[in-house]
Amino acid sequence: MTYCVGLSLNKGLVFMSDTRTNAGVDNVSVFRKMFTWSVPGERVITLMTAGNLATTQAIVSLLEERPKAPIDRQPSILEVPSMFQVARLIGETLREEITQSSRSGLQADDAFGATIIVGGQIKGRDPRLFMVYPEGNFIEASAETPFFQSGETKYGRPILVRAYDPGMSFEDAVKLLMVSFDSTIKSNLSVGLPLDLVVHEKDTCAVLHERRIEPDNPYYGLVSNGWGEALKTAFHSLPEFRF
Amino acid sequence: MTYCVGLSLNKGLVFMSDTRTNAGVDNVSVFRKMFTWSVPGERVITLMTAGNLATTQAIVSLLEERPKAPIDRQPSILEVPSMFQVARLIGETLREEITQSSRSGLQADDAFGATIIVGGQIKGRDPRLFMVYPEGNFIEASAETPFFQSGETKYGRPILVRAYDPGMSFEDAVKLLMVSFDSTIKSNLSVGLPLDLVVHEKDTCAVLHERRIEPDNPYYGLVSNGWGEALKTAFHSLPEFRF
Repeated sequence: MTYCVGLSLNKGLVFMSDTRTNAGVDNVSVFRKMFTWSVPGERVITLMTAGNLATTQAIVSLLEERPKAPIDRQPSILEVPSMFQVARLIGETLREEITQSSRSGLQADDAFGATIIVGGQIKGRDPRLFMVYPEGNFIEASAETPFFQSGETKYGRPILVRAYDPGMSFEDAVKLLMVSFDSTIKSNLSVGLPLDLVVHEKDTCAVLHERRIEPDNPYYGLVSNGWGEALKTAFHSLPEFRF
Repeated sequence: MTYCVGLSLNKGLVFMSDTRTNAGVDNVSVFRKMFTWSVPGERVITLMTAGNLATTQAIVSLLEERPKAPIDRQPSILEVPSMFQVARLIGETLREEITQSSRSGLQADDAFGATIIVGGQIKGRDPRLFMVYPEGNFIEASAETPFFQSGETKYGRPILVRAYDPGMSFEDAVKLLMVSFDSTIKSNLSVGLPLDLVVHEKDTCAVLHERRIEPDNPYYGLVSNGWGEALKTAFHSLPEFRF
């Protein structure tokens, strides 16, 4: 499994992903699931993958190789004119890769499936955040649904729904994501540290912060240990039930 | 979907279940999923069902009809000597019913599947809580795993894991369950009010409390509205993140 969240805030975009991949509980590895391309001041794009690792690695390689081969006339993630076209390019690449892997008929289509959260900004336009499906189509975040989760989404959702605020600071957003990831990691062995974090500040078209949160990160430890107590306090602050 | 939780406390057992059943989002009904049999002072047994409604209703009817037919030599839920035998009887009934429905070959086996949480106490013995699987086998709650959830278990699990305490009062247990159910109901349309609640006090072998919590229940409203604020306060009580 995997857990990735992309948050759209007034101040910009925040992305967090875990790094655990598994083919059964006895075959666990660490792989990066977050990838960023930027031409600072002109565009910044961050993508997070969930699903079949062979598929998602192929997508990232295909997207990376395209800008490197100037002879290739395919549209490139660093050349397309809008974030909508970026999402479209990713969707097409994803669908083609899944179709090609499935063509052998060795396994059901969905075994090669993957979902991608992609967000970013191109100079002169607004930041945008998309969720791209294995079929190649996609949806965009909006004021009513200002964040996307992929992978193991359920354990960490209630706190996102309750504490997310579009006006929150980047620091609060990271704290919120750490609580959401901690609830997920405590409940599902297939989601694990380290975590990757990227922040895009609106209108700079550049990465403001990029961090890897390792298992011994002291702030993560504070959140993980403190949240249990904070939840108990919250629980006891509710009015008492009487039969 | 469904959401049911059975908690084993030092003081006794607490059960809560929702009542929503659906065959698609355009076909939603209210059905009881919690059933109690008792001979006060001698035994008390509560069962909660999740899964195919035809299967679970058949199980309950089969279990109810057996004690009503004295000529029938089948073991009865009110006659078997231990809670282990109760779980065994339920498991056998469940497996037989699923096998029979599947025999036509009209659909895959798991479409007829169901899972049952059953707990209770028989005079002179300890209270016990079991989770019975569609295959008819079952597991028992223990000090390390003192509660069972069935159905849509993920949204409501983090608060159970963090705030459950075996020494808690029945009032606190009901409050905890209401928070857990509210998080689930807010996230999954196929879990819904009203909720059913039953409490067995240890060693009385009787139902101490039995309630139906309707959608307009004022305490549920307090919890549902108050929990968002309480969570935000808990969130802000955590130390601030600094880049």
